[in-house]
Amino acid sequence: MMVLYSYWRSTTSYRVRAALNLKGLAYEIRSVDLVAGAQRSDEYTAVNPGQGVPSLVLEDGQVLTQSMAILDYLDHLKPEPALLPADPIARAKVLAAAHTIALDIHPVNNLKVVGRLKAEHGASQDDGVAWMRHWMVEGFRAYLALLPKGDHKFSFGDEPLLCDLCLVAQLYNAHRWGVDMAGFERLLEIETEAMKLEAFQKARPEAQPDAS
Amino acid sequence: MMVLYSYWRSTTSYRVRAALNLKGLAYEIRSVDLVAGAQRSDEYTAVNPGQGVPSLVLEDGQVLTQSMAILDYLDHLKPEPALLPADPIARAKVLAAAHTIALDIHPVNNLKVVGRLKAEHGASQDDGVAWMRHWMVEGFRAYLALLPKGDHKFSFGDEPLLCDLCLVAQLYNAHRWGVDMAGFERLLEIETEAMKLEAFQKARPEAQPDAS
Repeated sequence: MMVLYSYWRSTTSYRVRAALNLKGLAYEIRSVDLVAGAQRSDEYTAVNPGQGVPSLVLEDGQVLTQSMAILDYLDHLKPEPALLPADPIARAKVLAAAHTIALDIHPVNNLKVVGRLKAEHGASQDDGVAWMRHWMVEGFRAYLALLPKGDHKFSFGDEPLLCDLCLVAQLYNAHRWGVDMAGFERLLEIETEAMKLEAFQKARPEAQPDAS
Repeated sequence: MMVLYSYWRSTTSYRVRAALNLKGLAYEIRSVDLVAGAQRSDEYTAVNPGQGVPSLVLEDGQVLTQSMAILDYLDHLKPEPALLPADPIARAKVLAAAHTIALDIHPVNNLKVVGRLKAEHGASQDDGVAWMRHWMVEGFRAYLALLPKGDHKFSFGDEPLLCDLCLVAQLYNAHRWGVDMAGFERLLEIETEAMKLEAFQKARPEAQPDAS
């Protein structure tokens, strides 16, 4: 069985858990406690020298890292349900929406980045929260601007795609850090639809074995 | 002809210019002067509401945004030379390497992020440079750890792939901001190989019409 090194509150782990569930792929979770620094242990560094989560260990022992690369692999391993449209232009548009979250929000709000802001630049806890909220609001605005008009359950249609995985996981963080969601009602509707699906329910941080 | 909205020093624009050149696709450059704030003009916001570069306007007028999504599209539009291997595991490994730069370095060092560090957190110009160097060094280490052993011209073989595009563009920034490249000689060798190719030479910031 595949092994997913994951941390319950990691939004990149959340994306991958949801994709594995949507595709009906079996996996075992091994927790990497980011707050305790377990990602920097010798044991985990041997799995992933980049010291990030998630990492996916395939059945033959090969290790894949970087959540967006893992999601690309899962879409090849089990093409249905597809995380991206087949048409290259439609695909690029869904990818672009996913990237407003996976590139423009998440890395800038990463634990290690906010940690450095505090350690090296004198930011308080409140400053760190303001930093995270700022990039979420800016990224969510860019995300909304990329969505097609029309009455869909999810961002680009009635099925969740790669961008929805990124969005729903990021919304967990938005709630956690108290982002004012006024103007982002459309995003909350998508979250509500996702939470009707068992794949997302089981991927939620609170549903994880290492949740505390 | 396709139109690429680009800024000479933007490393995300550099990636896309190099890919267009490698694939022999014709395009017209339109400059967006990020330092002058042209990305926030009404004219450019109408093209790309996310106000980032690059944007690629297709011949039918459709606009693609987010450099990694544009590169995915170009690989579908003109599959040769391929930016990613066909095998899904090999593909995921090249993507992961690309993402150590495109996700773990670039967004955190983005002009607007470093600008906010200065404006809101009292960082000096020197602090900003130290911030950028830190994430480059950390990301380059993670990149190196993902490379296969063996004597190759580029990161994963003798042809440049997606990760090489990201790397070479990021190295421009590393030199610009004085990153100590001790320990990263392998990355400099890859850069030297890239600079032997006209596709990279023509994509270089200094070769752009808006270089100053």
